[in-house]
Amino acid sequence: MSDRDPSTIYVGRKPVMNYVLAVVTQLNQRGFDSCTLKARGRSISTTVDVAEIVRQRFMKDIVDVEKIEIGSEELAEEGGRTRTVSTIEITLKKK
Amino acid sequence: MSDRDPSTIYVGRKPVMNYVLAVVTQLNQRGFDSCTLKARGRSISTTVDVAEIVRQRFMKDIVDVEKIEIGSEELAEEGGRTRTVSTIEITLKKK
Repeated sequence: MSDRDPSTIYVGRKPVMNYVLAVVTQLNQRGFDSCTLKARGRSISTTVDVAEIVRQRFMKDIVDVEKIEIGSEELAEEGGRTRTVSTIEITLKKK
Repeated sequence: MSDRDPSTIYVGRKPVMNYVLAVVTQLNQRGFDSCTLKARGRSISTTVDVAEIVRQRFMKDIVDVEKIEIGSEELAEEGGRTRTVSTIEITLKKK
């Protein structure tokens, strides 16, 4: 999750509607017809909520899920140990 | 999430490893070459963890993610109101 593509939105611990607004704003901009949501760990559930709220409520019949990918990432922890967290990427695309 | 297909595992609030064991057991049974994980709400993150642990650790090079679908479901709440929750379905399949 290092590339800072302008069409990528990183979902974290803010309220769901903050991310929904970011996605809708992104997809309404000229030149953007898709938007990728990325998250890891507990924020994965929030990411699915964001995608579903955009797709079923705010941009119904306008966008659809293009791709969903899951993966794992190694996070360095204090003491030199690493912890594995799951990740998700959901790409929404205008129809 | 009403069909009780024997190859479907519903992920909830038990420890992650319970579900990992269920998936591995399922996929090692004769006649089963795929397994679908279903969950809703906060358990979505756990479901991705289960899929990733199976795929990257216990059955590495044996199974892969075949399909991921997200959706929404209406849940009846006390007082006759409904609440929408997100859902996920991840299908793991032997290579």
